[in-house]
Amino acid sequence: MKAIIQTDPADPRSLHWQETHIPTPREGEVLIQVAAAGLNRADTLQAQGHYPPPKGVSEVLGLEAAGVIVDPNGCVRPDGMPYREGDEVGALLSGGAYAEYTIVPAGQLTPVPDGFGLQETASVIEAACTIWSNLMMTAHLREGDTLLIHGGGGGIGIFATQLAHALGVRVAVTAGSPEKLDVCRRYGADVLINYHEEDFVKVVKELGGADVILDIIGAKYLEGNVSALAPDGHLVIIGMQGGVKGELNIGKLLAKRGNISATGLRYRDREDKARIVAETVENVWPMLEDGRICHHVDRVFPIQDAAEGHRALLDGEITGKAIFEVAR
Amino acid sequence: MKAIIQTDPADPRSLHWQETHIPTPREGEVLIQVAAAGLNRADTLQAQGHYPPPKGVSEVLGLEAAGVIVDPNGCVRPDGMPYREGDEVGALLSGGAYAEYTIVPAGQLTPVPDGFGLQETASVIEAACTIWSNLMMTAHLREGDTLLIHGGGGGIGIFATQLAHALGVRVAVTAGSPEKLDVCRRYGADVLINYHEEDFVKVVKELGGADVILDIIGAKYLEGNVSALAPDGHLVIIGMQGGVKGELNIGKLLAKRGNISATGLRYRDREDKARIVAETVENVWPMLEDGRICHHVDRVFPIQDAAEGHRALLDGEITGKAIFEVAR
Ligand SMILES: NC(=O)c1ccc[n+]([C@@H]2O[C@H](COP(=O)([O-])OP(=O)(O)OC[C@H]3O[C@@H](n4cnc5c(N)ncnc54)[C@H](OP(=O)(O)O)[C@@H]3O)[C@@H](O)[C@H]2O)c1
Ligand SMILES: NC(=O)c1ccc[n+]([C@@H]2O[C@H](COP(=O)([O-])OP(=O)(O)OC[C@H]3O[C@@H](n4cnc5c(N)ncnc54)[C@H](OP(=O)(O)O)[C@@H]3O)[C@@H](O)[C@H]2O)c1
Repeated sequence: MKAIIQTDPADPRSLHWQETHIPTPREGEVLIQVAAAGLNRADTLQAQGHYPPPKGVSEVLGLEAAGVIVDPNGCVRPDGMPYREGDEVGALLSGGAYAEYTIVPAGQLTPVPDGFGLQETASVIEAACTIWSNLMMTAHLREGDTLLIHGGGGGIGIFATQLAHALGVRVAVTAGSPEKLDVCRRYGADVLINYHEEDFVKVVKELGGADVILDIIGAKYLEGNVSALAPDGHLVIIGMQGGVKGELNIGKLLAKRGNISATGLRYRDREDKARIVAETVENVWPMLEDGRICHHVDRVFPIQDAAEGHRALLDGEITGKAIFEVAR
Repeated sequence: MKAIIQTDPADPRSLHWQETHIPTPREGEVLIQVAAAGLNRADTLQAQGHYPPPKGVSEVLGLEAAGVIVDPNGCVRPDGMPYREGDEVGALLSGGAYAEYTIVPAGQLTPVPDGFGLQETASVIEAACTIWSNLMMTAHLREGDTLLIHGGGGGIGIFATQLAHALGVRVAVTAGSPEKLDVCRRYGADVLINYHEEDFVKVVKELGGADVILDIIGAKYLEGNVSALAPDGHLVIIGMQGGVKGELNIGKLLAKRGNISATGLRYRDREDKARIVAETVENVWPMLEDGRICHHVDRVFPIQDAAEGHRALLDGEITGKAIFEVAR
């Protein structure tokens, strides 16, 4: 098979479509032929050497895929519904999506939502699982809450905006351009904050504070996020685009009984991932099927152009998601 | 009636037993004649001007009391069990315990545990509610977990050690002397750390990390606490004896999917407090009654000697709890 191989570990752009061996599924794993792989910011970090795959996982990039099962290896989904050879599926991966074939632990397979193609499926898996696990399982977001989403125009941001809006949550978003903010508005954001022009802390405080904050910036926004939290609020940090170490004012946090969680999907164990995938499919797939949440595939690149896809994401050209197409 | 009045706001030792007016219960409140009031470190902070009572609450010190109902004011506990005039009760307060009479929202009354006197009752209420709400309702401590308790020899520490030990949790404690650590050991602590001699981070890492940390130090221990957390661990900060602002390494927190909560009982609203008191009485009172948790009243001062009680606590002379006796 062919896969994207990074030929120079020191050069994140050295991503080449090359011959390599087909991986062999072990117990509890399924082999799929990949039709589409989602592009995530984490892939760019991994190419830069900052985000290694967990032990035992392929070095090949790519955290989500959709395709066709070629070897079900006796696997049955945890809910008892078996997948068979030839079934179309989605897959949450710890790596390996930028390839013609990839292996998936059975608990990390998803159905293809009714009305979705394989590219659209590959575009929602990582975002849906990340957002459901963080907003619902960790922060217990509820109808009537106020949610602040940083990076509202990104793949995560657009999806989170739609999910929260569908749940009856008031959504405030930050983004860096009027164009991105306009997309956020169309997907249900109630309060639009251009972070180049406005202070999100001030805006969110005027709303009475945020019950939940979904943050991708980390250190640079830590102080502001704690200030913007409502009493009993929950700050969930899933990215560190603005640095790793920040000052925490514990007094301020204690005065509002605040909570901070920092989480990631990739290094969780299989049981945990299977639990998250199952809850996400149960709760989010119906919203995809009845249109409460739309995929937002902004651009499709041939997988051979992986390096160009990374460049476009890093240069801020992508609103929503970019997908790699893997032609048979 | 008489109460402890701080005659000079600038002098935390100016605590005098003086004549003042009896407070009048409003709707949903009960008047009790106080027999015993617990001494908490927060009282010393309030006397120093750092911890003002919430709006509408007595300026008189004291967060927990036990005594006899003199005016039930038509009140019925949330579970439907009415308290009557003459009933002995405990009370979780937002202030006002250092007095002959105090008013209590009905949802914050507790029964006197079987086998307990009023002094013992007054010694456990604030600790039990603080610990149950933090370890169980916030951090979801479970059998088999490892718990690190800072200040194991304090009022909070000794109670938390017993509760966790009774629940099948492995308990590590820090304290500043062999004597305090020996008391911790007798109450069920498994791992004893003298913080003057040993690095708690190193010890706890060797145990595989702490699933939950109950912290009273704040800034000074923030970095170490994050290092000592196990994957998916929860740091709960309830005190800031070591300062307010500390550096948070978000990368380290994210790598272990850690959670930080900072909480306090005092400024919660009545519904919240009633919920906490109800859960605490339901779960902890049986443990007090069958001896799984003992009170630890170290010293009893006449209420007239409030200033001397504060001095003894601040000078580190108290292991466990000190109680003020209010003679009729
Ligand atoms: N922990 C996990 O499990 C997990 C899972 C998935 C994703 N993530 C992380 O989540 C983050 C977002 O992922 P993604 O796929 O949505 O990436 P993305 O599509 O690149 O979106 C990131 C967005 O952030 C915006 N942004 C940049 N600086 C900002 C600032 N200072 N304030 C507010 N917004 C800012 C960017 O656009 P503009 O600046 O042009 O508005 C961009 O739209 C990444 O850091 C990723 O690593 C974590
Ligand atoms: N947020 C809330 O709702 C809430 C409720 C109750 C209490 N609290 C807070 O919880 C804390 C403890 O309360 P308490 O009533 O148990 O007070 P306490 O009886 O005075 O106990 C504090 C203990 O901390 C120990 N200690 C001091 N420095 C330490 C260090 N660097 N490392 C480890 N231990 C250290 C002290 O003894 P040694 O140094 O001699 O070992 C002492 O035994 C206070 O800060 C209080 O304000 C908060």
